[in-house]
Amino acid sequence: MVGLTGEKQFFTFGHPPDELILESGARLGPVTIAYESWGRLSTNRDNVILVTHAFTGDSHAAGFYPGENRQEVKPGWWDWMIGSGKGIDTDKYFVICANILGSCRGSTGPSSINPADGKPYGLTFPMMTIGDIIETQKKLLDHLGITSLHSVIGGSVGGMQVLEWCARYPEMISSAVPIATTMRHSALAIAFNEVARQAIMADPNWKKGAYYDSKPPDIGLAIARMVGHVTYLSDEAMRRKFGRRLQNKEDVSYGFDIDFQVESYLHHQGSKFVKRFDANSLLYITKAADYFDLVERDTSQPSLKNQAQSPPRFLVVSYTSDWLYPTYQAKELVRILKKNGWDVSFCEIEADCGHDAFLIPDDRLTRLLGGFLDGTSRR
Amino acid sequence: MVGLTGEKQFFTFGHPPDELILESGARLGPVTIAYESWGRLSTNRDNVILVTHAFTGDSHAAGFYPGENRQEVKPGWWDWMIGSGKGIDTDKYFVICANILGSCRGSTGPSSINPADGKPYGLTFPMMTIGDIIETQKKLLDHLGITSLHSVIGGSVGGMQVLEWCARYPEMISSAVPIATTMRHSALAIAFNEVARQAIMADPNWKKGAYYDSKPPDIGLAIARMVGHVTYLSDEAMRRKFGRRLQNKEDVSYGFDIDFQVESYLHHQGSKFVKRFDANSLLYITKAADYFDLVERDTSQPSLKNQAQSPPRFLVVSYTSDWLYPTYQAKELVRILKKNGWDVSFCEIEADCGHDAFLIPDDRLTRLLGGFLDGTSRR
Repeated sequence: MVGLTGEKQFFTFGHPPDELILESGARLGPVTIAYESWGRLSTNRDNVILVTHAFTGDSHAAGFYPGENRQEVKPGWWDWMIGSGKGIDTDKYFVICANILGSCRGSTGPSSINPADGKPYGLTFPMMTIGDIIETQKKLLDHLGITSLHSVIGGSVGGMQVLEWCARYPEMISSAVPIATTMRHSALAIAFNEVARQAIMADPNWKKGAYYDSKPPDIGLAIARMVGHVTYLSDEAMRRKFGRRLQNKEDVSYGFDIDFQVESYLHHQGSKFVKRFDANSLLYITKAADYFDLVERDTSQPSLKNQAQSPPRFLVVSYTSDWLYPTYQAKELVRILKKNGWDVSFCEIEADCGHDAFLIPDDRLTRLLGGFLDGTSRR
Repeated sequence: MVGLTGEKQFFTFGHPPDELILESGARLGPVTIAYESWGRLSTNRDNVILVTHAFTGDSHAAGFYPGENRQEVKPGWWDWMIGSGKGIDTDKYFVICANILGSCRGSTGPSSINPADGKPYGLTFPMMTIGDIIETQKKLLDHLGITSLHSVIGGSVGGMQVLEWCARYPEMISSAVPIATTMRHSALAIAFNEVARQAIMADPNWKKGAYYDSKPPDIGLAIARMVGHVTYLSDEAMRRKFGRRLQNKEDVSYGFDIDFQVESYLHHQGSKFVKRFDANSLLYITKAADYFDLVERDTSQPSLKNQAQSPPRFLVVSYTSDWLYPTYQAKELVRILKKNGWDVSFCEIEADCGHDAFLIPDDRLTRLLGGFLDGTSRR
């Protein structure tokens, strides 16, 4: 009844003078949120799972779009997790994934047209927070008539959204699964993001963000993505995947060409990325991640320390080789939730593939999630 | 008798047609090596310690230059380690440190004038290796009439030089102290270096290395240095040093200015660095480090697996929080040396400050080195 499975849909709200008011105080509107859904909404609308995507992800979490050639196109980014009989079972649940505010994959972001002047926002787009992202998702659920969530599930920046959801709307959420994430961005994570931003802003094609009618800052964006990819893998994963293997040659080049496979991999990731992502979106979303801090908040702000009548049940997942959001940060979250008296399960998965582990097909996570969701009683 | 303590000196060799022949087969000459020395050379020249510097270091390892204002200028980079009564005691030892080939701090590198055309080399400078660096240091010692080393000591890329020295000239070295280093550059370390190189080469001022008569690629070089600094610190060190502390303001900027102290630190390191270092030198030296691999070598090449009549005694030092060259890599080295039947001591120092730990005053390292050097009998 709500949306057709596997089609991208759009919800627009906040038409002036009823703009969305952001945490910074800035006003933004109208706002469009792109979303997709899978499965069937139950009659009493109590089987909804909201999947929140990572940093550069999008609403296309599973399946194919109608008419896509399955030999040529890859399915959605969590297709191994979401579907009939899978970890997030679309025979049981109605799954929604929305592209985040500030992105460039259908939802309003810096590359969208500013209705005030008919030009892309660029840097006139207001700075937004993870909290602002959650408010746009809440508006979408309101619009769909959904008042409770069986679960909210996501990894990395998606995990931050899970936590912010639980801080803002604990009473409407039965369970929450933050994966490979943190309650607050560390200095190390901020440092990497700042290097990535500087790489973009150093590209002369960036032009203070006003590049939409000219050549985009692809070189800077590719370098930013290379920085990201180094942090998504682990030392072990890189050793296993590339070691010191040379790219093409019998010997090193004794020049500045690509010598090692790891270099080739990073270049490939960089040039692939510029085709699908907007540099300004990267700037805004990394800033939102850097601002994220659920620990140091005023008592007036949404927090996981707040009391809730019936708080969500938590499954916190971390990976042994994730050095971007290491296990000690997941444990900090578990400690705070337990201190509240909330119901928390914690699982550290042994994996050598680093932060990106949650995106790589893994039966352990599938079974873990399947079991946890089944065990969560509906509200 | 050899050099005046605390003065930079220069040794030039390899005048055509007797150029230095590099590992790549390329010829380079004349070559100038800048060096400094401290202490007094014993009559039988058996008290020499060669200190090898890290990546962006130089020959100024200790003390002040004559006439320097000690209130305004910092002493050499290992001043807390080298001096009268210190860990490397200049009352006992004659200490030499030479600026590495390819650098820009007095020794021949890409910013030097190519005598063939009177212009800076730029990218016509031949690619060099850690082995080539060692050969220039050997030429310097030959010139100084030094045929044995009481010890060769260095951290990071300096540690690679220590190992390469021991592979090439084991019989002339009594002891060796490789610190915070590796036998081969890992995929992770190569990845970070490649990102740094790309940041420089993406700067339009780089002009394929031919920028010496124009504005240098300072923005790219600063970003490269930021990448480096992230890898030199540890997650713990960053947390302790910066956490999520804001730079100037009561609240975040909701803009792309510097919000966090860690960002300010990286920007500061970047802009400080461009004043003292050449972008092309960074390109060449990172490549030499990436090429470094003492494990996978032909039997014809110098190796630590070679038999030596009286091999050096080793003290291998690593740091718990060094994630650029982690302890497991030091242990790999220890294992190989032990397999050879060589005398190895290994010490992992508990420190939360990351790879840079060996540059930060620490009594434990001072005592460790002092004791080890005293215990090394002279040849």
